[in-house]
Amino acid sequence: MTKVNAPHGHPEHVHDHHCRPDARGIYVISPSGAVADPETLTRAQTRLSSMGFKVALDRGVLNQAQRFAGTDTQRLAAFTRALKQKLPIVMASRGGYGVGRLLHSLDWQALANSGKRFVGHSDFTAFSLALYAKAQAISYAGPMACFDFGAKKTEILTAEIFGECMRGELEILSFETQDADAVDGRGVLWGGNLAMMTSLLGTPYMPKIKGGILFVEDVGEHPYRIERMLNQLAQAGILGKQKALLLGGFTDYRLAEHDRGYDLKAAIAFIRKSVKIPVITGLPFGHTAMKVTLPVGAKVGVATEKGLAHLVLDEHQH
Amino acid sequence: MTKVNAPHGHPEHVHDHHCRPDARGIYVISPSGAVADPETLTRAQTRLSSMGFKVALDRGVLNQAQRFAGTDTQRLAAFTRALKQKLPIVMASRGGYGVGRLLHSLDWQALANSGKRFVGHSDFTAFSLALYAKAQAISYAGPMACFDFGAKKTEILTAEIFGECMRGELEILSFETQDADAVDGRGVLWGGNLAMMTSLLGTPYMPKIKGGILFVEDVGEHPYRIERMLNQLAQAGILGKQKALLLGGFTDYRLAEHDRGYDLKAAIAFIRKSVKIPVITGLPFGHTAMKVTLPVGAKVGVATEKGLAHLVLDEHQH
Repeated sequence: MTKVNAPHGHPEHVHDHHCRPDARGIYVISPSGAVADPETLTRAQTRLSSMGFKVALDRGVLNQAQRFAGTDTQRLAAFTRALKQKLPIVMASRGGYGVGRLLHSLDWQALANSGKRFVGHSDFTAFSLALYAKAQAISYAGPMACFDFGAKKTEILTAEIFGECMRGELEILSFETQDADAVDGRGVLWGGNLAMMTSLLGTPYMPKIKGGILFVEDVGEHPYRIERMLNQLAQAGILGKQKALLLGGFTDYRLAEHDRGYDLKAAIAFIRKSVKIPVITGLPFGHTAMKVTLPVGAKVGVATEKGLAHLVLDEHQH
Repeated sequence: MTKVNAPHGHPEHVHDHHCRPDARGIYVISPSGAVADPETLTRAQTRLSSMGFKVALDRGVLNQAQRFAGTDTQRLAAFTRALKQKLPIVMASRGGYGVGRLLHSLDWQALANSGKRFVGHSDFTAFSLALYAKAQAISYAGPMACFDFGAKKTEILTAEIFGECMRGELEILSFETQDADAVDGRGVLWGGNLAMMTSLLGTPYMPKIKGGILFVEDVGEHPYRIERMLNQLAQAGILGKQKALLLGGFTDYRLAEHDRGYDLKAAIAFIRKSVKIPVITGLPFGHTAMKVTLPVGAKVGVATEKGLAHLVLDEHQH
């Protein structure tokens, strides 16, 4: 087992070396928004290949229907093809909006039984959470083909951690935190994009998880909206029943003059006051180049010490 | 009974003349965002006085705490003072964000028993819907002191309809519609701002209404987000159980190049396809100068004919 010391501000990750030879193939589908630039897919293929993955693009990956990557029927068919082909990892090309339209048409039991490892974030959160809610299956909040591996520069740690997670080598993820309450516990890891998560509230696609470890991130949402969403999770009786709340990146919003000092810190302070669960900031996950890969629906451990937080991903295997 | 023919594009309203003498006093509170310009309150006082209303401003109406009109405690105290004073109408100065923070601290039974007529829109939707959910009391989706009566120009029909509704003179609201499914039914009128409404999903503040007549509006939300919110109401089993969906104004959003023809019309078409209830567009309500005043929680009738929709507000009194 090796401990890799990541650069400052980046997570440390610990891995061992029992590779799963069957974890080295990725099938890319487009379940949400249309891919604007085919170059991003080419770059993703090259990068993922250089990492040792066999990569296949679904034949509908470049489909377009208005803002979507094809009609609902076309995007549903991509899921069907993903289950029929042999590669074990199914990765979303990008987010946007569109998965929410498919939730009532997807065959959750077939998706769960397939044993495929679904990976994505942002809009893909709706898929991950629905898969857990309907079939208690694990999927992965992590990088996407275009957004991450198709970017002009892929963050090395994003790629490494993704690879290690897919190969089952990742045991502990440690990250620096400026602001973390003391916690040492275990629970089901779940969450993702906060707006997508709250868009499932009241529907059959929202998991019912108590004692979980909830992580959230968002992009382009003003802190008052982040507060409103977390407040909704609190008022719905969900937030207060979790073991911990992990806050990832909240990026690309603009404060206004009339905020008069109200900011993300104030929003978090309000939520902390209303719900007495440990809050941990600094999770390297969100609409940012640096992102960890997290098993949604898996039992994990969480612990904090001075300036550091640890996610223990697979102690159950030891 | 008189039928008033409104200018083109505006609602027609029909009223009779049994005034309620006790309906002529307005107490203004600030339950949400801070009032930026005190002038808007002065103008509102002048306008409402000229309409025959006695107007009193709550002493906290100009409070400021960051983006809010005072701390949560201060804004809660304004509700307490509103119940203690004598004027029958309690009107919000403006929206913004803040009511959601107070929901668990408000005394819903006292608010309902007070017999006050609460009026507001936007963020105030959370109050209206929670009041109905917790105490089955009627409140009013309608103009606010600063936003409407404090504007440089107040839409005459907005003011007239508000006055008639408060005096119990309003029987039928008719408005032009470009796109309405056939419907003729009765049910509980409810709704308001779509984002605020969906922010109550899963919480105890969301009314449980079947066979209702649901109206929604929003501002600054892209059509894909409007669709996402309506889709959530559909997936939560709420939308499909309503007699009709009335669409008010959806304003101040910007389409992007990558929408490629996806627009509000496409969003509405998707919702129509997923939920087979009558949809009526063109309700003059929203973040627009022209807005009707609607009794949230009251039983009303709805009917359409060629190019026109009618809301029958008080046939139960006849």
